[in-house]
Amino acid sequence: MAARNLVVAQSGGPTCVINSSLQGVVEAARCFENIGTVYGAVHGIEGVLTEDLLDLSAQDPQEISLLRYTPVAGSIGTCRYKLKEWQTEDFDRVIEVFKAHNVGYFLYNGGNDSMDTANKIAEMAKVRGLDLTAVGVPKTIDNDVGDSEFKLVDHTPGYGSVAKYWMHTVQYANQENKGSCPADPVLVMQAMGRKIGFIPAAARLADPNREMPLLIYMAESPCSLEQLHEQVNAKLRECGRCVVVISEGFNVGSLGELKDSFGHTTFSSSQMTVAQKVVNYLNEKGLCVKGNARGNVPGTDQRHSMAYASVTDLDEAFALGQKACALAAAGESGFMSTILRNPGPIYDVRYDKVPLSVVANSERTFPKDWITADGCDVTDEFVAYAKPLVGHEMLTLPMIDGRQRLTQFAPIYAEKVLDAYVPQAARKE
Amino acid sequence: MAARNLVVAQSGGPTCVINSSLQGVVEAARCFENIGTVYGAVHGIEGVLTEDLLDLSAQDPQEISLLRYTPVAGSIGTCRYKLKEWQTEDFDRVIEVFKAHNVGYFLYNGGNDSMDTANKIAEMAKVRGLDLTAVGVPKTIDNDVGDSEFKLVDHTPGYGSVAKYWMHTVQYANQENKGSCPADPVLVMQAMGRKIGFIPAAARLADPNREMPLLIYMAESPCSLEQLHEQVNAKLRECGRCVVVISEGFNVGSLGELKDSFGHTTFSSSQMTVAQKVVNYLNEKGLCVKGNARGNVPGTDQRHSMAYASVTDLDEAFALGQKACALAAAGESGFMSTILRNPGPIYDVRYDKVPLSVVANSERTFPKDWITADGCDVTDEFVAYAKPLVGHEMLTLPMIDGRQRLTQFAPIYAEKVLDAYVPQAARKE
Repeated sequence: MAARNLVVAQSGGPTCVINSSLQGVVEAARCFENIGTVYGAVHGIEGVLTEDLLDLSAQDPQEISLLRYTPVAGSIGTCRYKLKEWQTEDFDRVIEVFKAHNVGYFLYNGGNDSMDTANKIAEMAKVRGLDLTAVGVPKTIDNDVGDSEFKLVDHTPGYGSVAKYWMHTVQYANQENKGSCPADPVLVMQAMGRKIGFIPAAARLADPNREMPLLIYMAESPCSLEQLHEQVNAKLRECGRCVVVISEGFNVGSLGELKDSFGHTTFSSSQMTVAQKVVNYLNEKGLCVKGNARGNVPGTDQRHSMAYASVTDLDEAFALGQKACALAAAGESGFMSTILRNPGPIYDVRYDKVPLSVVANSERTFPKDWITADGCDVTDEFVAYAKPLVGHEMLTLPMIDGRQRLTQFAPIYAEKVLDAYVPQAARKE
Repeated sequence: MAARNLVVAQSGGPTCVINSSLQGVVEAARCFENIGTVYGAVHGIEGVLTEDLLDLSAQDPQEISLLRYTPVAGSIGTCRYKLKEWQTEDFDRVIEVFKAHNVGYFLYNGGNDSMDTANKIAEMAKVRGLDLTAVGVPKTIDNDVGDSEFKLVDHTPGYGSVAKYWMHTVQYANQENKGSCPADPVLVMQAMGRKIGFIPAAARLADPNREMPLLIYMAESPCSLEQLHEQVNAKLRECGRCVVVISEGFNVGSLGELKDSFGHTTFSSSQMTVAQKVVNYLNEKGLCVKGNARGNVPGTDQRHSMAYASVTDLDEAFALGQKACALAAAGESGFMSTILRNPGPIYDVRYDKVPLSVVANSERTFPKDWITADGCDVTDEFVAYAKPLVGHEMLTLPMIDGRQRLTQFAPIYAEKVLDAYVPQAARKE
């Protein structure tokens, strides 16, 4: 069987471990005789449309290894471009580019929207009788891919690392708050997760025995701003200080939000943050002790702060990249590689496959019974679920000449043989 | 000579290395026969006034060692309480407490205001003929202690670590911005440093060869918001994306600031952040490419993100704690331990002493000729100065059972033998 080439692309918000999956794909591809050159589409599916294909097989293997320590998607880039319908010229173009570069395998790393795109490409290939295997690789810090019973995916790569970030950050913030509480008795920290509360919930990993004055508000929390104010003052009466972790999706009314190209609210570009609304509300309504509330909005830091990346998460992301590559090599089109937890008290996982069509049409919610009755905490069941994901050790990052050594790809691209093309959704009307 | 006891206290905003100085003091004190028990005043000078003295000599030595990995001041706490006049009852109380606990040495770790407090206590002891040696230990992430010629202090402990934080963070942010630029072409990040630009300037360490589309605005930058908007759009025309690091003290007009007990503006408690003002301005006036500006406000994260602590900074903070203890043991009252850079191309330092009265009345400014003519960058001279401070390696943090192992002091306190006392400035009017 003649070798066909493989295109791998990344989509959506980046994570600390997205490049670990990429490393898994590139290194696994070397093991399969029916996979030829591995190309990285620059900026996701847009790079396919514009024929911007970075030759990953031609890169120095050391640079591929360094992907483990290189956060987010600066290496080949992600996109937020969605192929809306699958009978359009965008899809014709994908086929044209794949044919021109003898591409037989397409791997798409992303969240729900990306699995939908990968699924459409797999379906299109089937309908048109093309020899193209499309496989998904799961990724999202939000942990919102899959179903609520964790049968499709136990957790998504990227989540363990952002959970570890919050574990460390809340440990430090508690030190800060304890140390400087006469001046700043309330520290409010804003976590990502516009609809689903797995990220702010991870703050509880910093304090599984509930020894800190810590309040956690998720997008799903049934509390109002008034109740939050009461709960903060109750904590201040009890401890004299308080750490609040709040989701960017907690309902505080209008923030002057803007939309991204998927039509999702971009909290990071809004005219006001949730943390700021909460800080202002607390300072206006008043604290029951001296001093002010203050706020931190780490934003993208939480998904690219590589020193806090979970080694377990990195290893699993790598394995899911490998698995997806193996599925592709075996012609298993229309599947996503997945990670499932084996039963039993000791954390243990297995890698499997799940149909893209099922994943793309599923929605995960945060289990309601993992939120405490007062709405400002999560239960021990959540801690038992999330704790193994942060691992047991720190990652040691390579430094050279006073800076971190990140992957540096050589600019070796597939030769452009087709006419230039502007993606449909990127065209000016 | 009979041994006298030592009180060490911390004041002002915490740093990643403040406890490394504390470790230096406690471990050095064991070497001097004329120093007895080392007490940590809980929450700075307030802990002296309220007779809250934690017995550090009685702690498990392993917990003292773990101070190296324990950020900020949660161990014994800091304060923002300023002894305003030195002939008041607060000062009488300090003497009373020191006499009651046979305290012959007082070490104060902090910034300019704290050096002023330490100096007043040294002067008071002299005037009243007391056998009390007061010594300062420098500390501030702002690097604003000393004079502008760097003759009093080359740099302050805490600065090297926040500089390393920004070096890593801007490396990652550049990856993030490069990877996701079609959606989020501008990433604005807010750095601390209300008056002096050393912290935002450290962003340049991420990119000493100026390969990134990076703009840096300090409190001292001669640019207006309009000019910033023009410079961002110029960078977008050139590169399609842009990373902006901006000081919390950059002048964008009113933010609805609140004041702390020193009368300083607390940017962290204001009704709006500088980064938010800039993001809103850019999104309102418009970018010359598709997409929005977004913002990160890491706030206290930058001074307690322990994984990015500079090993060089930790070692120097430790040595300055040791040196201050040695100065105290030698009866050198009225001095601060200091770090000075030896001439020559290779980074090399020595530890010395400098009079507190000179430090307390000095003011460091950011060298004007280290700011570039366009106002949105710093020069290679700054890079040469700051680069050695971040060191060459990552700190490995001890983890136990999925969390970081921080110092846990046993609650062993000096017995309270005096009547209770409420610090003057803490009293309700």
